[in-house]
Amino acid sequence: MQFSFEPIGVVHSPFKKREDIAPRRNVSPRGFSAVQAELEIFKPFEPGLKDIDGFSHLLVLFVFHESRERKLLVKPPFETRLRGVFSTRSPHRPNPVGLTVVRLLRRRGNVLTVSGADMLEGTPVLDIKPYTRRECKRSFKMGWLEHRRR
Amino acid sequence: MQFSFEPIGVVHSPFKKREDIAPRRNVSPRGFSAVQAELEIFKPFEPGLKDIDGFSHLLVLFVFHESRERKLLVKPPFETRLRGVFSTRSPHRPNPVGLTVVRLLRRRGNVLTVSGADMLEGTPVLDIKPYTRRECKRSFKMGWLEHRRR
Repeated sequence: MQFSFEPIGVVHSPFKKREDIAPRRNVSPRGFSAVQAELEIFKPFEPGLKDIDGFSHLLVLFVFHESRERKLLVKPPFETRLRGVFSTRSPHRPNPVGLTVVRLLRRRGNVLTVSGADMLEGTPVLDIKPYTRRECKRSFKMGWLEHRRR
Repeated sequence: MQFSFEPIGVVHSPFKKREDIAPRRNVSPRGFSAVQAELEIFKPFEPGLKDIDGFSHLLVLFVFHESRERKLLVKPPFETRLRGVFSTRSPHRPNPVGLTVVRLLRRRGNVLTVSGADMLEGTPVLDIKPYTRRECKRSFKMGWLEHRRR
């Protein structure tokens, strides 16, 4: 059983290639907050952006399009042990779909300017959803990530 | 350009068909918190669950497999106006991928018991990611959803 998806847009990012992203950003919750990017939504999908302006944060689903490996165990940055891929945010996953919460700064037509982006230039966007109370957990445990307070 | 994905597992849910889900649950942030479900991860992917036990909350990406419509404007439950689909969580989206944050209650082998599930029985699971600080926004605005305090 397979499901096929077609991008609704593309990311324009200051990260032009993988080496442009400092791994240290990944271990800090503030690491990407100053990074601005544009989400260019393809013209046929622009009507779907109606009402989005009122939301401060969006969930962006995208394809890790440069990921060529499908792993079940991965070694995250600064880790020495192999971790189960589903307990990490590694791009090298069975289905290379990424998820990032961004802040919506402004919308101009079919282009959303956002901050908090960690995607590469050219990243295909699959979906955009509003960030709501249901994503906001006041108290949670982060397993092996718990000790990373940097 | 198309991307194909293969499910890593399947949801076992008390919601056997769409009519089993009361629309009112969708307008309350607590609406699904008591709903338990099982995420059965297919055996070949089980090694990827290593280390997941330490996380209290997981992001589950899944396919709205019963959605047959692709809309850009939708009328959410209890709304009279059409909203842009990317400002809603409607299943009738260009790429019918859903996202729900669940609480992990326990893991037994390849089966995760979770609460907070709003998926239908048989929903294909595409990915599981740990919920981290980057998803936890302390302050946010919810646009047209803002007035829904029920």
